[in-house]
Amino acid sequence: MKNSGTWSSYCPVNITSESEKIQLAHGEGARATRQLIRKLIEPRFSIGSHLADAAWLEHPSEHLAVATDSHTVHPLFFPGGDIGSLSVYGTVNDLAVSGAKARWLTLSLVIEEGLPIAVLECVLDSVAEAAKRCEVSVICGDTKVMPQGAVDGLVLNTTGIGQAMRFIPAGPDTIESTDCIIASGPLGQHGIAVMSAREEFSFSAPPVSDTAPLTDSVEALLFAAGDSVRAIRDATRGGVSAVLHEWAESGACSFELKQSQLPVSETVKGACEVLGLDPLYVANEGVFVAAVAKKDAEAAVAALQKLPISREATIVGQAGEPGMTPVTIRRILGAAQPLDEPSGAPLPRIC
Amino acid sequence: MKNSGTWSSYCPVNITSESEKIQLAHGEGARATRQLIRKLIEPRFSIGSHLADAAWLEHPSEHLAVATDSHTVHPLFFPGGDIGSLSVYGTVNDLAVSGAKARWLTLSLVIEEGLPIAVLECVLDSVAEAAKRCEVSVICGDTKVMPQGAVDGLVLNTTGIGQAMRFIPAGPDTIESTDCIIASGPLGQHGIAVMSAREEFSFSAPPVSDTAPLTDSVEALLFAAGDSVRAIRDATRGGVSAVLHEWAESGACSFELKQSQLPVSETVKGACEVLGLDPLYVANEGVFVAAVAKKDAEAAVAALQKLPISREATIVGQAGEPGMTPVTIRRILGAAQPLDEPSGAPLPRIC
Repeated sequence: MKNSGTWSSYCPVNITSESEKIQLAHGEGARATRQLIRKLIEPRFSIGSHLADAAWLEHPSEHLAVATDSHTVHPLFFPGGDIGSLSVYGTVNDLAVSGAKARWLTLSLVIEEGLPIAVLECVLDSVAEAAKRCEVSVICGDTKVMPQGAVDGLVLNTTGIGQAMRFIPAGPDTIESTDCIIASGPLGQHGIAVMSAREEFSFSAPPVSDTAPLTDSVEALLFAAGDSVRAIRDATRGGVSAVLHEWAESGACSFELKQSQLPVSETVKGACEVLGLDPLYVANEGVFVAAVAKKDAEAAVAALQKLPISREATIVGQAGEPGMTPVTIRRILGAAQPLDEPSGAPLPRIC
Repeated sequence: MKNSGTWSSYCPVNITSESEKIQLAHGEGARATRQLIRKLIEPRFSIGSHLADAAWLEHPSEHLAVATDSHTVHPLFFPGGDIGSLSVYGTVNDLAVSGAKARWLTLSLVIEEGLPIAVLECVLDSVAEAAKRCEVSVICGDTKVMPQGAVDGLVLNTTGIGQAMRFIPAGPDTIESTDCIIASGPLGQHGIAVMSAREEFSFSAPPVSDTAPLTDSVEALLFAAGDSVRAIRDATRGGVSAVLHEWAESGACSFELKQSQLPVSETVKGACEVLGLDPLYVANEGVFVAAVAKKDAEAAVAALQKLPISREATIVGQAGEPGMTPVTIRRILGAAQPLDEPSGAPLPRIC
């Protein structure tokens, strides 16, 4: 914030040094983000409940869903991906976990003056390749340039429109206390990959982002388990922890994870130990969490494992009765511990 | 650009100090923007021709249009509006000039750490009020926070989805050399209002932005003149000049404006003289340019004048045979002069 000129003397409210300020935590996708949305956004707009990743149009003739995402990842390129592919898969996945197959995408660029055009071309190539992989058309866009110093490099917004899949998850409201929790793949890959690129850590084998489209895996899950699939969320900012805390917020159920069941690669495990992070809080960009009725959970996992992106899908925990602790984790050696929801901002600009 | 870490060592291209860079002009909406889109965007994506403001979905059952816009205006508040209302009307207008009535809107916030929450609340109130005025629902959103210094204040993306009006303009391809050019209101209000707020100029009567929804005026125009309406564009970045240069680019026609006919307020005229600007290059946010067949042009103007927002609508020029000069202006005293298209960036961050 350079000076008060940012909002100008025409701002109708008086701002002092005591005024409450936006903090990095408001963008972390966990508790502070939820609170901001509940307090500031929901009272003003007809945004759906549950902060769902996508909204369904009240459209007479066909079921269309919409999702939007601005991407601010730093650095722009990281092992396994870049801001271009991330922006496509991020929005495609928001639609997928809502039960919609992305068809159309808008692309809005906010570019810092001085960005090398070759960098922009790489990013656009990546957008185009990712869109082709997902069979979505980029149909319109917008280009803004901000003066040097007014935005760091490149911010990329995509908004996606998708068509309803055959089955649509009913939503976290419907989770029952006997349901199983499935993770579709290994945890923490994306956050650790971006961190390692940003901080220029040198690992012998650098962690690679899991950035990938989840549409096929979601369709396979819904085909295998149908109405038994209560809710699906991609575990992005705030990781698996943020998804389960959000689902638990209604107070209708709690969740217990089993550490021994969590799919975490040795690379991520090692990096998390060094960095003092828990993979459950680290962002993924190609992993979802699903709540599935117990009777169909094994079949659901088997269906997911048939696809390369979700070949490591596994049951990582279960829902339970509502209690004092919304999410607990049963450690490998020892009793169940509460899984706190961090209010700080461990990993800004991860997506 | 802090350092090469912005795109990181994982960037697949080698960037040197000689690499071509993005300039402010690439975001001005005029020639450099068009060239960037033609060279970088069009070869990669199925973006419609003519850089239209909105795209139509290839949708089996109903005609739906989509438009996206990121807003970076500085300062956030200015006489007559703010980034909130601007973001709603900007996208609603992109749909309107394409012949679609906005129905649904997404809202994506990229916020600088440290922005006072009261400022954000003002902006969101403004979004909500503008959305209500346009009868659009804000159905989903996204919130990102960037660390202090990584983005200046607030960037706001809206993506709109709209339904086809009864008539849809056929597009600038169909402009004929006898068509009239209509401006729907006084020129240059928005750009001058933002500049005066940014630079803290003190005018006795400060210019007020024209930020407003154009849907009703477009509908009135299309209802009055139907198929005679060849093309409509809102004259935002780059002003009326940018619209006519873009339409002339196909080479099928040229345009001649009459200075004596241009609706420009005394305030804007005075400010433009002081600042060395021509109102034809200054951004509007509540004015469109339309090419209408001569036989229906008077009726079109009469229909527009019945609505408050377009009560100063008037014929400002006409199309002509293709020639060496795409756009000329007949000055009040003297012969026709070429209206150059600026390649520089006179007014960054105006929307």
